[in-house]
Amino acid sequence: MTTPRADAVIGRCQRLASFSEDADSLRRTFLSPPMRACHQEIAGWLQPLGTQVRVDAAGNFRAFYPAERPNAPRLMIGSHLDTVPDAGAYDGVLGVVLAVALLEELHGRRLPFGIEVVGFSEEEGVRFGTPFIGSRALVGRLDQELLNVQDTRGITVRKAIEDFGLDPREIPQAELGKDILGYLEFHIEQGPVLEKLGLPLAAVEAIAGQSRLEFIFSGRANHAGTTPMDLRHDALAGAAEWIGSVERVARGVSGLVATVGKIEARPGAVNVIAGEVRLTLDVRHQEDQIRKQAVGDLIRMAQEIATRRGLSAKETSLLNQPAVAMDPFLIGEIERAIIKAGCKPHRMVSGAGHDAMILAEKVPSAMIFLRTPGGISHDPAESVAADDVEKAIQCGAYLLDQLAASRQFQ
Amino acid sequence: MTTPRADAVIGRCQRLASFSEDADSLRRTFLSPPMRACHQEIAGWLQPLGTQVRVDAAGNFRAFYPAERPNAPRLMIGSHLDTVPDAGAYDGVLGVVLAVALLEELHGRRLPFGIEVVGFSEEEGVRFGTPFIGSRALVGRLDQELLNVQDTRGITVRKAIEDFGLDPREIPQAELGKDILGYLEFHIEQGPVLEKLGLPLAAVEAIAGQSRLEFIFSGRANHAGTTPMDLRHDALAGAAEWIGSVERVARGVSGLVATVGKIEARPGAVNVIAGEVRLTLDVRHQEDQIRKQAVGDLIRMAQEIATRRGLSAKETSLLNQPAVAMDPFLIGEIERAIIKAGCKPHRMVSGAGHDAMILAEKVPSAMIFLRTPGGISHDPAESVAADDVEKAIQCGAYLLDQLAASRQFQ
Repeated sequence: MTTPRADAVIGRCQRLASFSEDADSLRRTFLSPPMRACHQEIAGWLQPLGTQVRVDAAGNFRAFYPAERPNAPRLMIGSHLDTVPDAGAYDGVLGVVLAVALLEELHGRRLPFGIEVVGFSEEEGVRFGTPFIGSRALVGRLDQELLNVQDTRGITVRKAIEDFGLDPREIPQAELGKDILGYLEFHIEQGPVLEKLGLPLAAVEAIAGQSRLEFIFSGRANHAGTTPMDLRHDALAGAAEWIGSVERVARGVSGLVATVGKIEARPGAVNVIAGEVRLTLDVRHQEDQIRKQAVGDLIRMAQEIATRRGLSAKETSLLNQPAVAMDPFLIGEIERAIIKAGCKPHRMVSGAGHDAMILAEKVPSAMIFLRTPGGISHDPAESVAADDVEKAIQCGAYLLDQLAASRQFQ
Repeated sequence: MTTPRADAVIGRCQRLASFSEDADSLRRTFLSPPMRACHQEIAGWLQPLGTQVRVDAAGNFRAFYPAERPNAPRLMIGSHLDTVPDAGAYDGVLGVVLAVALLEELHGRRLPFGIEVVGFSEEEGVRFGTPFIGSRALVGRLDQELLNVQDTRGITVRKAIEDFGLDPREIPQAELGKDILGYLEFHIEQGPVLEKLGLPLAAVEAIAGQSRLEFIFSGRANHAGTTPMDLRHDALAGAAEWIGSVERVARGVSGLVATVGKIEARPGAVNVIAGEVRLTLDVRHQEDQIRKQAVGDLIRMAQEIATRRGLSAKETSLLNQPAVAMDPFLIGEIERAIIKAGCKPHRMVSGAGHDAMILAEKVPSAMIFLRTPGGISHDPAESVAADDVEKAIQCGAYLLDQLAASRQFQ
């Protein structure tokens, strides 16, 4: 059922998509000029609601809607405002726009807790190659090392903050205080699961742990015409066999995903046998032990294939991030709210990282996924159904009422 | 047995390797400035022998050593003088330097036929992406279309010829006349076969036919974390399975080689399932029917894999070059000469293309391969043993004597 409020959310996401660094597509990276216009637009929606708007020293947009009494604790609701290049209109932004819609649905009513809407400055890692700059500031992890990271033009995070008119020395003031009850994030699923199940919403129970590695298979580059098949040490033939193993291992374990997304063969000529192949491995699972076991198995298989073929294989670990559980109390309340909104509840694991994963280090955190048509995200074709947005608003409104009535959130 | 004349050949190849476009490695492309120095150096060796030296309008170095009487026919002996980037000292150059050595071994003696030493201007295809520019001129195939091909700086073949001080209008005069008895080319094997057999020399019986294709596997780019294994359309997983088929098919047919040397996965990110993979296929065999059968099988296998995985596969033919037989009379004479030089004769197929393949369109052509240590070519580590060079000189000298005595070469 399409409603004016759901259509408004979609219209606002599309309006924010017009604030872009690129002329014909959406790209809005950390503290780029269109981010300021984005902040101003959202502030224009929030100020009539009686919120106090600010941009913290890490560039996060933050708007506080007070509680029914002073010094009450607060619930944060939000997501990120930055995008990948050639982005869609909903990844991140939808979570901020839905937070605004939930405040509007209160029609001025105050709750036992305040609500802070947050639009994180950086989640995608596009500009500096490091993700979560915004949410890291809230948990005290936007440190000197990260401030010194440079973008491709040699501009540091620190300089980018200064150039936006902010003061990096005030980053400690961006940190979460003791008064935070929890963090709630609506986000598109970015995958095909809910569409396949025919469900508009899901409660996220955990964010999968993630291993990223680079593998190098080394053989001998040689002439494709003059080297008989039995005298070859073809690094690409070996790497291809191993890619088959990656797929087989992941298919054999429930919930495990493993991906080779990047591959380079050297010298990379049509008539030269590859002497070296570099390729990446991305492995995710909600249980760290299963993920580590799979990574270990795949390293052994690479060695076995290399040895058998007269190649060598070596791997480098790029990322080793444990799984993060969402808050059980909030998951339960979200499921109740999903049911009240007339939907079948579903719990799922997020295969992607999110700001909630960072916030969970310090505060009870939870996420609600919205069905993503075609599973398409990070693409101009990314979309969300108005019906599902309406269900998300209903779910969010019920959730706020539940929390307002619960002992934990007094 | 190392000899002064073999050492001289190796020394001359190394001296020619000093004429390079690059400071620390050898690269000498079509009519680049070091090609002029290369011509001058070789001319300095040939002029004392009573040859007439010229550079034809296609930039080929040509030196004529007259026969015992005027208007006698001529035998061409040579190879190419251009190199790949980061080249070794022997690929091509060795065939020209050996031709010079064979003239020197005549010690002024005239034969019933003249000998034209040729150093082709272009065989590797580096500067213009099109190989055999030099030898194509000799068979009348350096046409207007090829003259208009541009290098990466936008300079056409025609302009490169003019800039070298030559006149493209005189290209027809570079063509072979009616007086050519045949073409003989010494060349390093560029493969591991002779080394494995323990033989210094081989007669080439054919140059393998060659098919080159590009394949594109298309699936759906998607998030590596959020897309379960059973909902993926991973173009790289499909392409990897097919690379396995390429290897299997080639291993199953004697003399067949098939190579995937170049691969690109898009978007090519560690955390994104590949939506598209482009890769090349190079297939060679001395029998065109076997090669075509293998290419057809591999196209069908690509389709089968793609269909089963919900991908699409399409292929584009880049090159379809029939096998070229070397001249049976010359092959027989080469084998006799190899035996006289004290070596075991061996016939083999060249998996690589050579100028002899182009010349064979018009004149009886033949090649003699020299063992290549480690099968290494197109690399600074490319080498040739002085003992093998000595055997090549002996073989060549016997061959000239045989031809001088044969009815066909009067």
